[in-house]
Amino acid sequence: MSLDYRAPLRDMGFVIGEWLDAPSLWRTVPQWSDLDLSTAQQVLDEAARFVQERIAPLNASGDLEGCRFESGEVAMPAGFAEAYSEYVEAGWPTLALDTDCGGQGLPQLLDVALQEMLAAANHAWLMSPGLTHGATACLQAHGSERVQRDFLPKVASGAWLTTMCLTEPQAGSDLGLLRTRAVPDASGDGYRISGTKIFITGGEHDMTENIVHLVLARLPDAPSGTKGLSLFVVPKWIDTPAGRERNGVRCEGIEKKMGLKASPTCTMAFENALGWMVGEPHRGLASMFVMMNAARLQVAMQGVGHAQSAWQRASAYALERVQGRAVASSSVAEARASAPIASHPAIRRLLLDSRAIVEGERVIGYWAGHWLDVAAHHPDASARQEAATLASLLTPITKAFFTENGFAAASNALQVFGGYGYIHEYGIEQTVRDSRVSMLYEGTNEVQAIDLLARKVMADRGEGLRTLLAHLRVEASRCRECTHAADSRTASAGERLDALCADVERVTRDVIRVGNDDAELPYRVASDYLALLGWLLLAFAWARTLRIVSAATAAGDADPFYVEKRATGAYFFDYPLTAFEHRLALVEAGCKAALPAAGHVAA
Amino acid sequence: MSLDYRAPLRDMGFVIGEWLDAPSLWRTVPQWSDLDLSTAQQVLDEAARFVQERIAPLNASGDLEGCRFESGEVAMPAGFAEAYSEYVEAGWPTLALDTDCGGQGLPQLLDVALQEMLAAANHAWLMSPGLTHGATACLQAHGSERVQRDFLPKVASGAWLTTMCLTEPQAGSDLGLLRTRAVPDASGDGYRISGTKIFITGGEHDMTENIVHLVLARLPDAPSGTKGLSLFVVPKWIDTPAGRERNGVRCEGIEKKMGLKASPTCTMAFENALGWMVGEPHRGLASMFVMMNAARLQVAMQGVGHAQSAWQRASAYALERVQGRAVASSSVAEARASAPIASHPAIRRLLLDSRAIVEGERVIGYWAGHWLDVAAHHPDASARQEAATLASLLTPITKAFFTENGFAAASNALQVFGGYGYIHEYGIEQTVRDSRVSMLYEGTNEVQAIDLLARKVMADRGEGLRTLLAHLRVEASRCRECTHAADSRTASAGERLDALCADVERVTRDVIRVGNDDAELPYRVASDYLALLGWLLLAFAWARTLRIVSAATAAGDADPFYVEKRATGAYFFDYPLTAFEHRLALVEAGCKAALPAAGHVAA
Repeated sequence: MSLDYRAPLRDMGFVIGEWLDAPSLWRTVPQWSDLDLSTAQQVLDEAARFVQERIAPLNASGDLEGCRFESGEVAMPAGFAEAYSEYVEAGWPTLALDTDCGGQGLPQLLDVALQEMLAAANHAWLMSPGLTHGATACLQAHGSERVQRDFLPKVASGAWLTTMCLTEPQAGSDLGLLRTRAVPDASGDGYRISGTKIFITGGEHDMTENIVHLVLARLPDAPSGTKGLSLFVVPKWIDTPAGRERNGVRCEGIEKKMGLKASPTCTMAFENALGWMVGEPHRGLASMFVMMNAARLQVAMQGVGHAQSAWQRASAYALERVQGRAVASSSVAEARASAPIASHPAIRRLLLDSRAIVEGERVIGYWAGHWLDVAAHHPDASARQEAATLASLLTPITKAFFTENGFAAASNALQVFGGYGYIHEYGIEQTVRDSRVSMLYEGTNEVQAIDLLARKVMADRGEGLRTLLAHLRVEASRCRECTHAADSRTASAGERLDALCADVERVTRDVIRVGNDDAELPYRVASDYLALLGWLLLAFAWARTLRIVSAATAAGDADPFYVEKRATGAYFFDYPLTAFEHRLALVEAGCKAALPAAGHVAA
Repeated sequence: MSLDYRAPLRDMGFVIGEWLDAPSLWRTVPQWSDLDLSTAQQVLDEAARFVQERIAPLNASGDLEGCRFESGEVAMPAGFAEAYSEYVEAGWPTLALDTDCGGQGLPQLLDVALQEMLAAANHAWLMSPGLTHGATACLQAHGSERVQRDFLPKVASGAWLTTMCLTEPQAGSDLGLLRTRAVPDASGDGYRISGTKIFITGGEHDMTENIVHLVLARLPDAPSGTKGLSLFVVPKWIDTPAGRERNGVRCEGIEKKMGLKASPTCTMAFENALGWMVGEPHRGLASMFVMMNAARLQVAMQGVGHAQSAWQRASAYALERVQGRAVASSSVAEARASAPIASHPAIRRLLLDSRAIVEGERVIGYWAGHWLDVAAHHPDASARQEAATLASLLTPITKAFFTENGFAAASNALQVFGGYGYIHEYGIEQTVRDSRVSMLYEGTNEVQAIDLLARKVMADRGEGLRTLLAHLRVEASRCRECTHAADSRTASAGERLDALCADVERVTRDVIRVGNDDAELPYRVASDYLALLGWLLLAFAWARTLRIVSAATAAGDADPFYVEKRATGAYFFDYPLTAFEHRLALVEAGCKAALPAAGHVAA
């Protein structure tokens, strides 16, 4: 059996072409007037080849070898730097970068698919270039002319890798507690940064000739809290007229982690390091949020990638591994013969859950990516505005919901392997370890949930949410119109989707109303509320999928791909979607019952 | 903050004394006539001291150091062998062993508590003595006089450690595929065993002077399948008149695993190894099942131990770690000050879920242990029979449900630590890695679910289940009688418990009825059905707890322990118990919707 990663190119093409009908946007955008589905598919094919041949094979070896720290230097696992050079040379970092910044100017949507592939193939390797897009966007938006001149081309092309230096020992999610200081340099050019940052991904390595740190620090006159943070660009090496000089930033060690062994998580000491400000004084957090938001959809796609690769491995194993007898056998002889474990319903449930969830998530993740393209390029300003609203709502949902499901899918896949899953050999325990981090970084999933409910849904009293629901209801109504007798599934999916929208609307109203007098309410239901919207979105994804399949088969298309989609969609509505009612019950519970006080958690 | 494990002695005493009222059994059993709660509590206090001082401190170091394999030998981590010697010397292995076998003859219930402590403190270390009880029971029940003479005292005391050699490369859960052979020795004494066994816990180590392997193998005339397996005892060293001789069994390597790094998982090669049969020819599986059943409740308690230690660490951290501001603050000053993360409702929910589940599970796990004592020692034969039925039903439920919850609790605790949870420092990622194995070994959780539904509930058409439900309904009715106005919680818990019992009864009837024509049905709903009973049992645990607290506080007892119990119980019924309805919906879905065929799982 092959456990090698294979990008689900057919499904990716289905989502982009049939589910999203992305070309209908592309045709309205001058720079994409030449782009069609076949070109897009070629890009994805090429990406898949590169990822499968050059990146995936380094996943297990990278985990085994890990990173080595010695006297301030970090050695990456064998093959990582070479693969990265090829990645840069092939132009993958600039796939969706504007052409006037030296990019290829393709849709974000295609980059979202690329991110999924990279995460599925080798999450640890992906960590190195993981911040390139965010840093590029940040420097484009907020860098001075001088900073852009000195850093942007190298950062955007991936020639220099970047880091995001936020966290300090005393300040994780709470950035107001940061202490790193920046003082104007005596020369009048730049600032001197001093302080210690922890958990810095790729703070030191041997993959690129320079490393560019984006660092949050306080100016001498800064107010306390998050409104006193400024952002600085601090390179490892500084080009001076006298030549290249080592800047005052050093790696003091790397963390021993549960997973991502091939990605160095560094403690970085800044000692009078020379840097230049990015954006306005005291407005550094706003500048850095450009980076973090770009990163969140990437992290969401890590959840999809992990679920995909875990499900692929587990299904390949389950179809070959022979154990026990089939339950429902058509003959005595068959009943006596050993059967592949995929024939055992309990194993099939685990695999079907993953399939239904990952294929639904791919739709929603790409939908979010497509809204980014609409927001940036649609000719109509109100369409751009609406798209920005939708993307902003979808970002925390996909980040938290997909990464939680990615970890669960990895653990379910491990279960399919039985005892073999617990050992290193089949790689699945690595996926469990690697996937766990995505629930923590770029804002923990709890922070995402509060961002969604308190700062997005409640802040505009449900206005943005109504925009989202309107899209879902249009789909529900189209599904309900599919009334040919051979296909009651699509119509009933439409009815179900309508009912779920009504549930979400009602419970949102309750949360807003009860929350008026009970300030803690949104914070105690936020995580369940986020998951509730996650399941709603998957129902939307599968409802439209069923409608597309319906239309195709009604038109005589007997493609097995559609047959499988219909079976998976039916399974989704029968089984996994029961989780919607569970989350709804939890949100309703939260509206009624306060929590015991903080001290009560003590063991 | 202290993250050291502290055994929850007060809660253990509460369960044994108040919830179970175990002494009412002890008084009827002659060998326990001197045993009272204060003696039992002394035993637990002593156990806790030993576990906290000698076993827990080796947990992190054992994980870091791991086991070293070299030319057939396995070196255990520093301190493991010394701690084990003290454990044997103190007599902990024989706590619940009959006095006529050299044991202390105390109730299994106390040993169940000891198992929980050991698993919470150091799961990997516990793996070494983990099979002692099972091997002792197996040799007691099935060993010939000669085998008992040569092996039983050393095995029972723990002087020699034991292994259970089932799995072979081609045969995991499906033991019918085993190939290891046994032929009578030319001398007429014993058999010669040849074959390879994998995943053998403690197959080789430097903890005891001898290692005793219990090995499943086929005699030359054996029928194929599981009915052709015989059991043999095969020591590493054989005492001969000429002195001690090395037997033909060698460790060929140890596995690299996700966790339990300090427990060697060995590949064992048997080459003409001399062994003696245990039990009848071809009946080896029945003999070995004695071992496996004993082990399953121990594994269930690992789930409780992991949840307990994870929750303890996370709550200690959450009460000290300062991040962000409290949501519902009574003053502006308070709102501006940073607050411990335990004050954040999302974090509190994670911790409260763990607390409510682990305290409920402790009740049910000890209840199962207590039924083992009733089954073995009650003066009345029908009471013994009923107890055996209940213990047999509870074994698969506790094994699968508790271990799944243990892993989930560990992952939730990791989430409380945020990014710090992902690094080695706080030990919580180790708990996630270690706890995952309990869902796999001693029969995967899917195997437990089929054991419960197909082989237990359906095999007697719900008879045993009705016995279990009768106990729950008696409790529900007592709770409903608590009608004083100050305590509506107990009465409503009784009503809820009654309703859950009715749901379980109804859906069980549906499963049996629909399953008559749909052979696959029980296999596709078994895991959800098991979890459904798990939640039902936790509701039972908390209903009686609320009633006890009610009675105590009505009697004027204002012990904060009771106040906390009441708050946790209320939380349990408000929030976590919503999972019951989710599992019910999934079982109902299974009654209606068949699954796509096996081939459909392919990625």
